[in-house]
Amino acid sequence: MNAPMRPPQRTLSLPRPYLLFLGDISEKSFAKTAYGLADWAGDQCIGEFSLGEAAVTTGPPSMSPAQAVSLGAKSLVIGVANPGGIIPGAWCPALVEALDAGLHIVSGLHVSLASIPALREAASRGKRRLIDIRRPPQNIPVGSGRKRSGKRLLTVGTDCALGKKYTALALQRAFAARGVPADFRATGQTGIMIAGSGIPMDAVVSDFESGAAEMLSPDAADDHWDVIEGQGSLFNPSYAAVSLGLLHGSQPDVFVVCHDPTRKNILGLEGFKVPSIEEVIDLTIRLGSLTNADIRCGGVSLNSSSFGAEEAQKLFAEEAERLGLPVGDPMRGGESFEALVENCFR
Amino acid sequence: MNAPMRPPQRTLSLPRPYLLFLGDISEKSFAKTAYGLADWAGDQCIGEFSLGEAAVTTGPPSMSPAQAVSLGAKSLVIGVANPGGIIPGAWCPALVEALDAGLHIVSGLHVSLASIPALREAASRGKRRLIDIRRPPQNIPVGSGRKRSGKRLLTVGTDCALGKKYTALALQRAFAARGVPADFRATGQTGIMIAGSGIPMDAVVSDFESGAAEMLSPDAADDHWDVIEGQGSLFNPSYAAVSLGLLHGSQPDVFVVCHDPTRKNILGLEGFKVPSIEEVIDLTIRLGSLTNADIRCGGVSLNSSSFGAEEAQKLFAEEAERLGLPVGDPMRGGESFEALVENCFR
Repeated sequence: MNAPMRPPQRTLSLPRPYLLFLGDISEKSFAKTAYGLADWAGDQCIGEFSLGEAAVTTGPPSMSPAQAVSLGAKSLVIGVANPGGIIPGAWCPALVEALDAGLHIVSGLHVSLASIPALREAASRGKRRLIDIRRPPQNIPVGSGRKRSGKRLLTVGTDCALGKKYTALALQRAFAARGVPADFRATGQTGIMIAGSGIPMDAVVSDFESGAAEMLSPDAADDHWDVIEGQGSLFNPSYAAVSLGLLHGSQPDVFVVCHDPTRKNILGLEGFKVPSIEEVIDLTIRLGSLTNADIRCGGVSLNSSSFGAEEAQKLFAEEAERLGLPVGDPMRGGESFEALVENCFR
Repeated sequence: MNAPMRPPQRTLSLPRPYLLFLGDISEKSFAKTAYGLADWAGDQCIGEFSLGEAAVTTGPPSMSPAQAVSLGAKSLVIGVANPGGIIPGAWCPALVEALDAGLHIVSGLHVSLASIPALREAASRGKRRLIDIRRPPQNIPVGSGRKRSGKRLLTVGTDCALGKKYTALALQRAFAARGVPADFRATGQTGIMIAGSGIPMDAVVSDFESGAAEMLSPDAADDHWDVIEGQGSLFNPSYAAVSLGLLHGSQPDVFVVCHDPTRKNILGLEGFKVPSIEEVIDLTIRLGSLTNADIRCGGVSLNSSSFGAEEAQKLFAEEAERLGLPVGDPMRGGESFEALVENCFR
């Protein structure tokens, strides 16, 4: 009764192209988001904006917010993270300058942009948006289980943080290169910035988790593929709820297992072993078949960054033989990865 | 930086005993919460408070808020639901009267109590709390998977809404009657009102779902049982994420499968069949063994309300024979239910 009626909101949608904000950081590792954007959405990055003599650059030309606006930029994206996910006071004048120049601000940091009075005032003054990517859209429905038209691929993992986003991006690009119509569907912060839209699946209330995944990849043409970024792992006792809701709502036709052969234990959790690829395939098919009886494994994406070129090829061949599935590394590309791509949309 | 530091909040905790508020409803079916409270927390219900000539009563004496306060009541609980989960304007003067008399207000309705100005003002005037049970506590940690001391039982279901709360309450009561130390752990709104504490698991953000379940049943004495109210079903495409997070975080030693033999399809979802009891046992053991390798099924709680007494006994015996597990109905009690209880804490 007292809740105001809101228009139905779909996924988050970000005004693009971007100006990348690098703050005053001097360590590359804090600029992961900006590097991801430069790599995967380079055509959407008009320029870079740093404070003082920033030691880090991701490639695009350095410019002021006003210059970026004159070149068509719509949003400033905070492409760096400080420990704690905060916005240091020293960044505020630059962010206010960006708002006053006419840019919206996009942030994936823990702190809410609107909680900073100077930003709130400047945004209100210029009617600009403060977009926190960690906040999921309103009005997410409960999942219905209804089968949608079009094809879907989901990347799943033997654990967190071993290449699910990267693999999904590479597969979508490879599909498109072969003339297969495909969209990348983002489920995490960096992915959302790259795609310009998406839903932060880990921030959705549990009751609506599969409903959010259903909303993320709506009905589409029969030959169209949504390539969906996976989250967490069914074998991770912290995050399996996110993974299961995403699996049920995505109702994938095909999934690709992402694995890092050097990782033995679940990240950050003592006493939990990384499952075998076979266990992940088996459980994903069992649980995924609830909403798509035809679910199948398209192959395996191995993170082979700790191996030499020859060693990696040997590993792919051995694993492919053992599993009876194509195995490759999107970072290396080549024949093994081509075979994986072909086996997904066959 | 800008987020205020909050003291660590544990589960929701409700000031008791209660005055039950029945509003102006005339249909019993809208008073489900009040009936549940009268049945399962009768010793915490000082009295009933209705508007005008309410046609519904749940048992305790009718009285005003001031009388209830003089008898020791601490909170008024809204024990009725209107379609839409709203608070009609006609209820407001009565609720303000309760606040002014010194009672806190507890609500499980969809609308937030604090969104109603008259209630907000009265609460602030008398320093009373407006407690919305749908809001989970702050500062829920991410699940760690760490094994906790004490024993745990979780009720799971072949679907939603077929007796998981009732079964958990009955098992906790039966444990206590046998001198087995046990607490009921509530995960839904009515359960939380009955227990006086708990966490609304369906309202927790997915990333923290297993962490919330870990918080709900903390370390305990080795011979102590937490009997945890289940939510949803692993086979329900809308709510399986809630069920899996609750299973992983509860790390149950024993689970009891709740089933309604007359239900053929998942509630409200076309095309989804209710799974067999065996399927639920098998999948619960497979997924639950991630955080407790010793998980086992204690037996089956059948909702036999559509059967005659003799027919029900025959059904229990047949199912027990088929499954090799005790099968009973807590609503009927008797030997079959006793056998189920004994097999849980053996």
